[in-house]
Amino acid sequence: MNDTSTAIAKLNALVSEIVDLRNAASLIGWDEHVSMPPGGVAVHGGMAATIQRIAHEKFTSPQLGSALEDAAREATSLPSDSEPARLVKVTARDYDRAVRVPSEFVAEQALVASAAHQAWKEARAQSNYALLQPHLEKLVRLGQQYAAFFQPVAHPYDALIDTYEPGMLTSEIQDIFDVLRPRQVELVRAIQERPVEQAPFLKSAYDEREMLAFSTEVISAFGFDWTRGRQDKSTHPFAAPIGSDDVRITTRFDNYHPFEMLFAAMHETGHALYEQGVSPAWARTLVCGGASQGVHESQSRMWENVIGRSRPFWRHFFPLLQQRFPSQLGGVTHEQFYRGINQVKQSLIRVEADEVTYNLHVMLRVEIEIALLAGAISTKDAPAYWNAKIREYLGIVPDTDANGILQDMHWSIGLFGYFATYTIGNLISVQLWETYKKDDPQWEGRIQVGEFATLREWLRESLHQHGRSYQPRDLVMRITGHSVSTAPYLEYLESKYGELYGVSPAAT
Amino acid sequence: MNDTSTAIAKLNALVSEIVDLRNAASLIGWDEHVSMPPGGVAVHGGMAATIQRIAHEKFTSPQLGSALEDAAREATSLPSDSEPARLVKVTARDYDRAVRVPSEFVAEQALVASAAHQAWKEARAQSNYALLQPHLEKLVRLGQQYAAFFQPVAHPYDALIDTYEPGMLTSEIQDIFDVLRPRQVELVRAIQERPVEQAPFLKSAYDEREMLAFSTEVISAFGFDWTRGRQDKSTHPFAAPIGSDDVRITTRFDNYHPFEMLFAAMHETGHALYEQGVSPAWARTLVCGGASQGVHESQSRMWENVIGRSRPFWRHFFPLLQQRFPSQLGGVTHEQFYRGINQVKQSLIRVEADEVTYNLHVMLRVEIEIALLAGAISTKDAPAYWNAKIREYLGIVPDTDANGILQDMHWSIGLFGYFATYTIGNLISVQLWETYKKDDPQWEGRIQVGEFATLREWLRESLHQHGRSYQPRDLVMRITGHSVSTAPYLEYLESKYGELYGVSPAAT
Repeated sequence: MNDTSTAIAKLNALVSEIVDLRNAASLIGWDEHVSMPPGGVAVHGGMAATIQRIAHEKFTSPQLGSALEDAAREATSLPSDSEPARLVKVTARDYDRAVRVPSEFVAEQALVASAAHQAWKEARAQSNYALLQPHLEKLVRLGQQYAAFFQPVAHPYDALIDTYEPGMLTSEIQDIFDVLRPRQVELVRAIQERPVEQAPFLKSAYDEREMLAFSTEVISAFGFDWTRGRQDKSTHPFAAPIGSDDVRITTRFDNYHPFEMLFAAMHETGHALYEQGVSPAWARTLVCGGASQGVHESQSRMWENVIGRSRPFWRHFFPLLQQRFPSQLGGVTHEQFYRGINQVKQSLIRVEADEVTYNLHVMLRVEIEIALLAGAISTKDAPAYWNAKIREYLGIVPDTDANGILQDMHWSIGLFGYFATYTIGNLISVQLWETYKKDDPQWEGRIQVGEFATLREWLRESLHQHGRSYQPRDLVMRITGHSVSTAPYLEYLESKYGELYGVSPAAT
Repeated sequence: MNDTSTAIAKLNALVSEIVDLRNAASLIGWDEHVSMPPGGVAVHGGMAATIQRIAHEKFTSPQLGSALEDAAREATSLPSDSEPARLVKVTARDYDRAVRVPSEFVAEQALVASAAHQAWKEARAQSNYALLQPHLEKLVRLGQQYAAFFQPVAHPYDALIDTYEPGMLTSEIQDIFDVLRPRQVELVRAIQERPVEQAPFLKSAYDEREMLAFSTEVISAFGFDWTRGRQDKSTHPFAAPIGSDDVRITTRFDNYHPFEMLFAAMHETGHALYEQGVSPAWARTLVCGGASQGVHESQSRMWENVIGRSRPFWRHFFPLLQQRFPSQLGGVTHEQFYRGINQVKQSLIRVEADEVTYNLHVMLRVEIEIALLAGAISTKDAPAYWNAKIREYLGIVPDTDANGILQDMHWSIGLFGYFATYTIGNLISVQLWETYKKDDPQWEGRIQVGEFATLREWLRESLHQHGRSYQPRDLVMRITGHSVSTAPYLEYLESKYGELYGVSPAAT
């Protein structure tokens, strides 16, 4: 008998230290946004750059390469769906991508991103794009260099997407956008013609601490595991998994947008539940984490929108919210509240956008990224391009760059190819939801009494536990029986908002 | 002309990434005590072990060894007091020590300490020493192994002390103790015979947040740089420098011991001012940090005791404290308050101990450590040994192990050889203080109006800026004109408490 575990175990031992380093980088990143005093920028930049460089060096070392070869040879004798075989496959894919990127590049990217992120904070505070532009210029150039490491690809942007959405092509995303764009622009247009319902309670002042307590009640009911996670404040909400047993989420606090805080908490909890639900078998391996950003986003979108903005959810939670805020909500009905939180508005701000306009915000960003990376527009022209696009899609123009091109942190940390995953996530969230509803005909009754364990366990069983061990395409197919598709999402959107606004879908 | 900077610059480039890793380890440690959810123990243990192991591997690599040789050769042509020459010397000393300790040992130590620290928390909460004992057993064995790497030494404990107090010998510490012990035991005895003054205001309830606000006012006046540091809560107060531009302190909150919180904040600020005061020239080198734990402790002791428990300090701050707590302190005089916060009591708890008994707490621990490391007693016997010693020195016996052997975190993270540095620190604090007073005859006037900038800048100029670039022995000599000595401290103690309690020193 051959001891088939040996080569794979040897690979795992090497990989586990890379996972430790990446977890440390994640912690340093969390700290930078949550705890770091302003003077700590340089020291954090140094730590992050060194750790990422060492992780990259170790991962791309000849030692790991040969351990991987041995493990791959060993895995050929295992069923391809077995855990070790999937683990080796994921590791090999990551390795093949990583060896194309030199360590010096990784270190430079980290340093540039650290400085750019600080510049973005300042630029956003002052609404002065010029403070960010030279940093963005460097990051775009780094993005182009990065894409070049993956030649030949059909489109340079493919290499960037592939980091976040393995296997997805620029052309596929453009096809998806081409289907969504006219239907969503038309839906927005039709809704715009309907009278605006007033929902003054959305603009009342709500006590921060009381709203945080309520949002904590909600995400606890969702199943956020506080023994393996925490929640803090930061400028921009995010989820930072430091392994699946320490998953941290943040929320942005704002007296004037209390419900955004609440929905952001649900959103980040969706991410957190995914990470916390990964099987312990994958701990300290590269399989630990989400299958892709899009699949990840399907989880945040599901809890935030499909659940968190639904009638059954608020049947349970609205009375509880009313109890906390009697003066603001005492005279509001469940239906008024439901309609209020699902108001469609041409907002300038992506994170405040409703379901109908959200994908349009994404498209605008993805189109700018593709143009920047292809050199079709310069970073200096980007704000004008931004303003033209948002006018085209939503009929509005930002009053300031802070409310326009400076609103998101993504580019300031070098995230190109990422935004599309929000839309992919929207599509997958509804595909999963429709599948779940078939498996659990009692879903509505559960949700309207605040019982989310059945859904959460269904997600854990079908999706979360697998971590990155299946390709996103295969995973979605495996669970829903279909590849990622636009139809369920458009149907969901047009049906929900058609009913809300009394408009019938133009295209159907 | 030879370019003399080349070899040293090359060494610095290699060392800087080790400093980055150590800073990351420091951040992970801070996080473990301040932010980590309970489930994060394993992932933190993994990160800390891997990062410390890599730092150790890199520091002890042949590449670094040969870069150090080249740099040392280059440094022979430089004045021995020049910055680069001192830097090379510090690096060489650290290297010579590090190459004796195998990487596997470092990783094992980190893992064992991580588990032991969690066990200690539980043991302390339950006052159940048995939960800690098996972990402590492992740590003692690791301590013995560590000492063996430094053979030959006059005493195995020398190797452990040397980590924290470079150049200090077990015999020197024993000599110091032999001078201090009878004088301090006698002072305690003499004070015990005096009537106990009541100070009920020490036992009043004080609002946590108000006291935190006051302590923040005090440490801000001391000069804690909030742009390069922060303060949080933790079980045990500590200072964690993540480089000199991000220095974090913690405080322990307790409604019933509000003044301990206040003095702990002053104490940790003393450490923080040292780290924040290191010259930026030493950033990302091994010189960044304090010359030794004893010298570090001299700074915390100076701000906590020599300043923070003095009459001039409270001439400024007592009226401000009274304003915050009129019901508790409105009827208390400055002199009553001064006497209250300098009460001598046979406390069971080191961190609550006064100046007169503190060194006796230290001696007891150091004597146990020496006995444990030498195998003269077993970890199972340690609680009984502890209780016997504290009875001998202070005439009291712990009611529970939580108030006895389980009170300090040090051993649970493998810190053997550390405790003596508290006493060294006490001695140096007064030596420095006497020197400062000669240099600044206006000292009393400044302190009683809350002006600490002159003292802080004197410390920065004479001590802080140099980081680890001088050996502690040389540094103390350089500043005070004397080696570390017991006389100034005993004189300070006997004079301050002789006056307070109306007792005359027995030995003079």
